Amino acid sequence: MYVILVYDICGDEGGQRVLNKTFKICKKYLNHIQNSVFEGEISEPQILNLKYELNKYIRKDIDSVILFKSRNERWLKKEFWANVEDKTDNFL
Amino acid sequence: MYVILVYDICGDEGGQRVLNKTFKICKKYLNHIQNSVFEGEISEPQILNLKYELNKYIRKDIDSVILFKSRNERWLKKEFWANVEDKTDNFL
Repeated sequence: MYVILVYDICGDEGGQRVLNKTFKICKKYLNHIQNSVFEGEISEPQILNLKYELNKYIRKDIDSVILFKSRNERWLKKEFWANVEDKTDNFL
Repeated sequence: MYVILVYDICGDEGGQRVLNKTFKICKKYLNHIQNSVFEGEISEPQILNLKYELNKYIRKDIDSVILFKSRNERWLKKEFWANVEDKTDNFL
C-alpha cells in the first residue's frame, strides 16, 4: 500500500512538542518529502501502528492528519514543481 | 484527473506574499483541505495554467510544491485522522 500523509499541528503552547513527536513517529514509517508531508510503502498493520502512536499526541480538535492511500504507487504520479529535496523530477 | 497539491513556502521576508498568492491561486483550481494541502479534479490544461500562475511567485530554490496525480479519485482512499475541516470521515 502506497500512502501520502500530511499533517497540520496547531501552533499553540503544546504544539511544538506534538510537532516533534509527530515528525519522529512518521519518520519511522515513511519518507519525509516536504515540511509536513510524508510518503511511502506501508502495510495495513503498520498503518494501524502509526495511527496508534500518533494518537497519543495528536489533539483531535485542533490538529489535523490526513492519509491518502493508494493500492499501488504506479497509480499516482508525483511532480515536483520547485525546490526538490530528493532532486528526482523538477521541470518548473 | 484527481490531484493532491502540497506546498511549503519559505518563511523569509518575501514569503508571506508568496504564501498568500499561492493560496489564492490554488483555491481557484482546487479544494483546500488542510493548511498547505489542496485536492480535487482538474484537467491537464488546467494543471498547466495552475503551474503557470504559481510559477510567477514560487521561488524555485527555496519554496516547494509537489503535485500527486491520479487518473481516478477512486484509486485513492482518503482518511482524516483528526480535526476534519469538512467533517466527512473521522474515526480517531
